[in-house]
Amino acid sequence: MKARLEAKAFAPASVGNAAVGFDVLGHSLAGPRDVATVRRIDAPEVRLAPIRGVVTDLPVDPARNTAGAALLSLRAAAKVRFGFEVALEKGIPLGSGLGGSAASAVAALVAANALLPRPLAREALYPHALAGEAVASGSAHGDNVGPQLLGGLVIAGHARLVKVPVPRRLWAAVVHPHAVLETKVARAALAAPYAIGAVVPQLERLSLVLAGCYAKDLSLIAEGLEDVLVEPRRAHLIAGFSEVKAAALKAGALGASISGAGPSVFAWCDGEAKARRVGAAMRRAFAAVPVGSDVFVSPVNGPRAELLR
Amino acid sequence: MKARLEAKAFAPASVGNAAVGFDVLGHSLAGPRDVATVRRIDAPEVRLAPIRGVVTDLPVDPARNTAGAALLSLRAAAKVRFGFEVALEKGIPLGSGLGGSAASAVAALVAANALLPRPLAREALYPHALAGEAVASGSAHGDNVGPQLLGGLVIAGHARLVKVPVPRRLWAAVVHPHAVLETKVARAALAAPYAIGAVVPQLERLSLVLAGCYAKDLSLIAEGLEDVLVEPRRAHLIAGFSEVKAAALKAGALGASISGAGPSVFAWCDGEAKARRVGAAMRRAFAAVPVGSDVFVSPVNGPRAELLR
Repeated sequence: MKARLEAKAFAPASVGNAAVGFDVLGHSLAGPRDVATVRRIDAPEVRLAPIRGVVTDLPVDPARNTAGAALLSLRAAAKVRFGFEVALEKGIPLGSGLGGSAASAVAALVAANALLPRPLAREALYPHALAGEAVASGSAHGDNVGPQLLGGLVIAGHARLVKVPVPRRLWAAVVHPHAVLETKVARAALAAPYAIGAVVPQLERLSLVLAGCYAKDLSLIAEGLEDVLVEPRRAHLIAGFSEVKAAALKAGALGASISGAGPSVFAWCDGEAKARRVGAAMRRAFAAVPVGSDVFVSPVNGPRAELLR
Repeated sequence: MKARLEAKAFAPASVGNAAVGFDVLGHSLAGPRDVATVRRIDAPEVRLAPIRGVVTDLPVDPARNTAGAALLSLRAAAKVRFGFEVALEKGIPLGSGLGGSAASAVAALVAANALLPRPLAREALYPHALAGEAVASGSAHGDNVGPQLLGGLVIAGHARLVKVPVPRRLWAAVVHPHAVLETKVARAALAAPYAIGAVVPQLERLSLVLAGCYAKDLSLIAEGLEDVLVEPRRAHLIAGFSEVKAAALKAGALGASISGAGPSVFAWCDGEAKARRVGAAMRRAFAAVPVGSDVFVSPVNGPRAELLR
């Protein structure tokens, strides 16, 4: 069998934290995506081609680029002699809270994996994706790479990923305001410690959301889908957030919160039609700030990264 | 139909927190139990008869006794003219971490409920049970009354209870050392706040345990059943804790931690036989301290409170 020399893959955007699972729960989104084309090269190294798409001013030093760092990690583990050149086409805006840096790493990994003599199982790419994510945010949290690798709603453990079954009727509306919120700024807002009494209500909400997903009970999800831990400290970083969230709830969302580190805002809804109405209401609320925005709707059980052509 | 004038009920002991769900997750236990006999009385009040059993030095002022406070709450909501006299027979030791104060409230409620012209559904007793629990510990957490009311493993929300399905093979071994740890002392150990980075691993473990229960995957439960939030701050309050926990894990437990506020220690195990071996190993480890102890084994899906005869 002739060795494959080039592969192309996409990875979807994702909603990190999913309101109740800071750094550990997230889901993928149909719509925005990053694409990576990876070529085998003879040099024993990882190289980045110039970056194209909606973001171009990313580091091209492979150790400082999420896709580069992920491939360095994969290459070391796979013990191959050849190297990789990766060409990224960014479809996910930077600093949007939609898992863009994670998606570049995951797309590159899925493509490069296809070039290995013995491709790894999908889950085995997880540590390499975390190695990429760590470069971007300084912490190796898997709530974006996890759902991008497996699709849908995923618990990102320290050692493994668990796909959570999601009721079919559960759709997400995600609104991306045309503003950038740096992950490091959003993380700095969480510097002050939490009393145990402030943690308990979040443990409860996380439990209710997971129970609701497994039991296919949207009323449990609606009761639980509320971030009482992180959102109160980050809401002020997003112009219009409280109005946008209120608009989502008024339009019938089960719950709404910040996507990842923001500034995108997501809402979970009962069905696609409701998600479209909620998305439009959120967009109008951002417009009143005024901030322009884009709306995406997707099943919460969104796609996973896949090879292209 | 002649009105019933007296009813008797038991409520089981329970394992609060269940390692990963501080104040929100717990399960009931077959074995130790409190029994309440409630009589309708003409006086519009709640009265406590002298308390019998393994604990007798409890407040008999109904507003300061968990069963009394629960019945005061129930009576006010039910708008009945008659009152209740409750006779408690304590089978659950005080300050053991086995949910004894909650069990008195739940047993009294289940008995008194049978005397109402229109008895409430089981779940509707929850707020009254919380009103009782608040008297004992100063905080209205439902991780003991919840499982005592519904049986098995229960998420105790601020407004409702959710019963979590539990794999049949999941058994608990619980060892009660002959020592008292006051809940208020155990709570004081949690006074210092937590960095967000210390909370995330607990969110992850809670997610893994719930996913493991719903998916009937003991390996997920084993990976998640670890208290990284509360146990490290309370372990020193229990003589021999680290040795007892190590003994449980060495004997093959899936995980082990403090039951409720302690000093009882519980372990979850694959099967009854393993739970018996683990319980014996934990008891030996306490004996080496030396501390005498009692061992209970029970399905994690333990019983709920029920009327007797």
